Amino acid sequence: MSGKPEDSAVLERLYAVIESRRGADPADSYSAKLLADGAEAIAVKLGEEAVETIVAALAGRRDGLVGESADLLYHLLVLWAEQGVKPAEVWAELARREGRSGLEEKASRSRP
Amino acid sequence: MSGKPEDSAVLERLYAVIESRRGADPADSYSAKLLADGAEAIAVKLGEEAVETIVAALAGRRDGLVGESADLLYHLLVLWAEQGVKPAEVWAELARREGRSGLEEKASRSRP
Amino acid sequence: MSGKPEDSAVLERLYAVIESRRGADPADSYSAKLLADGAEAIAVKLGEEAVETIVAALAGRRDGLVGESADLLYHLLVLWAEQGVKPAEVWAELARREGRSGLEEKASRSRP
Amino acid sequence: MSGKPEDSAVLERLYAVIESRRGADPADSYSAKLLADGAEAIAVKLGEEAVETIVAALAGRRDGLVGESADLLYHLLVLWAEQGVKPAEVWAELARREGRSGLEEKASRSRP
Repeated sequence: MSGKPEDSAVLERLYAVIESRRGADPADSYSAKLLADGAEAIAVKLGEEAVETIVAALAGRRDGLVGESADLLYHLLVLWAEQGVKPAEVWAELARREGRSGLEEKASRSRP
Repeated sequence: MSGKPEDSAVLERLYAVIESRRGADPADSYSAKLLADGAEAIAVKLGEEAVETIVAALAGRRDGLVGESADLLYHLLVLWAEQGVKPAEVWAELARREGRSGLEEKASRSRP
Repeated sequence: MSGKPEDSAVLERLYAVIESRRGADPADSYSAKLLADGAEAIAVKLGEEAVETIVAALAGRRDGLVGESADLLYHLLVLWAEQGVKPAEVWAELARREGRSGLEEKASRSRP
Repeated sequence: MSGKPEDSAVLERLYAVIESRRGADPADSYSAKLLADGAEAIAVKLGEEAVETIVAALAGRRDGLVGESADLLYHLLVLWAEQGVKPAEVWAELARREGRSGLEEKASRSRP
């Protein structure tokens, strides 16, 4: 849960913050508001951030891509929290693919 | 770059693998194929995985949400690689918001 | 149900074709396959076509935008059919907004 | 350009209204604002409405599906206007597929 600022552990810290906001006053906390609004509202936000990430990338706006990616990851973490999925489950899924036969080869086989 | 299987460091390892595939034979590597296809093709895949993540969550398919989230993260990393964005830049952006005033408060202020 | 090739009535004709395929052999008809697969599968396709429409527009690929828009509209019609929504309901909703105070003004008021 | 309220011709009327707003004061007209904001902003809105359409359908909210579909179609028309695509071009593309071998068969062949 510690780490340098530029470490992926920020994702675990952020997830813990989101979890800690569950049940807080939606007026005080955006995470609390999203969790109170539920899966549909979070899914809409996730979709919006994915579109904004795509648009920033296609426009070649590098800073925009960094910022929108951060927004996308934040809302993905909120969706996991709302659905009771722990980050470690997703890391394990990525590691499982990596360990078995190389993640990208696995990814490739699962593509149509 | 090391870590337990269920550690977010898998994202950094995966990004390094993707980078190492740049220029490889697209027939051998899905990452190499995506990087060769370019930003538009990667963006389409990212959008597809975001939709599949949303659909899995709304259907309450927990395992599906884990798997689709892994696919979404993988394609996000490929998009970063294609655009020359390092994961540390996104972690730093998340940490910057966290450090300033609480990430979720910052997120809230940036919402319309 | 008649009209020139370049008339929006093609949407009604197409919807009728989709409806007529309900229950047909999925091996013979893509519409029958989608209807048999259900709302989740159709929603994923709709999302994919929306992303491809966006990407074509941002790339300035005019022919791509026409083709992807056609794909998007087709899958939207299939989603309506699957959910029991008639095209006339959507046209009436658009006309209702238009009639009340100018559609775009209504649209504006409904924006956040 | 005429027609009953529940006729697809509402799409052509709406497109004409959008075109007529080009260059108008963005403070007075949502269409004028979108056209002034440009392709990226319109694409983001289109993506958002597609996600909301998907979410409404998966939640089985029939009225929501009608309303979000209307929003999706409106923003698609704005994107066409911004890119100089006429509705008749898209209707012709749909009719071309229909005429050649049955639209859904064409759609099927173009699917992966």
